[in-house]
Amino acid sequence: MLQEILRSIVERTDGAIASLLMGFDGFKVESFGPQDPSESPKDIEEIGIEFGVIVGNIRRAAQALQAGGTREVAILAEKMVTIIRVVNDDYFVALTMKPDGNPGKGRFMLRTAAPRLLKELS
Amino acid sequence: MLQEILRSIVERTDGAIASLLMGFDGFKVESFGPQDPSESPKDIEEIGIEFGVIVGNIRRAAQALQAGGTREVAILAEKMVTIIRVVNDDYFVALTMKPDGNPGKGRFMLRTAAPRLLKELS
Repeated sequence: MLQEILRSIVERTDGAIASLLMGFDGFKVESFGPQDPSESPKDIEEIGIEFGVIVGNIRRAAQALQAGGTREVAILAEKMVTIIRVVNDDYFVALTMKPDGNPGKGRFMLRTAAPRLLKELS
Repeated sequence: MLQEILRSIVERTDGAIASLLMGFDGFKVESFGPQDPSESPKDIEEIGIEFGVIVGNIRRAAQALQAGGTREVAILAEKMVTIIRVVNDDYFVALTMKPDGNPGKGRFMLRTAAPRLLKELS
């Protein structure tokens, strides 16, 4: 079921490459894609580990800045867009996309998937 | 002129609080807002310093992941949305907004302001 949710995020977002459910401890729970490995500069797990650490730092900084809990982080780089949605204190879901994809749709898919993923995790 | 550009970003974005041009070394070049200090949980300069360090880390991670140069980072927290646009290797421009603001407009304003800021800086 986790796999199905991650698959639907990728399949229903234009330009999506891969999706991933990971713990903030860096351990992958489940992932989907890329279906064409040439689409992704690096493995989705490697991307999750790198950016997961950074989202951990952002959560601490946002708390220090009294901005409250971090909900989402989007990173637009030249060759890849990554959107990370915080599922709960322990897990996040990430989506990588091509730079010409539809990040608005990706954000929407992650936002609606997060409670369903949480339900499967508990 | 820098101040004028930063002012127009805030004034033309619904829900915007403050904007800032800062070096990745953590030194503020110029800022605008907040006009109502109660709108911002922390000073825009403090926010810039905290998130500027993080964007520096993201740039290094994106390069390591072969994703190319980082163009933009958006951080959605419970009480504040922050959008950061990389101007060049040395500078970034940041915009803070209320959570119910219009981040799409904010992104557009930063994207179009970046080359104008760069021209003023050189």
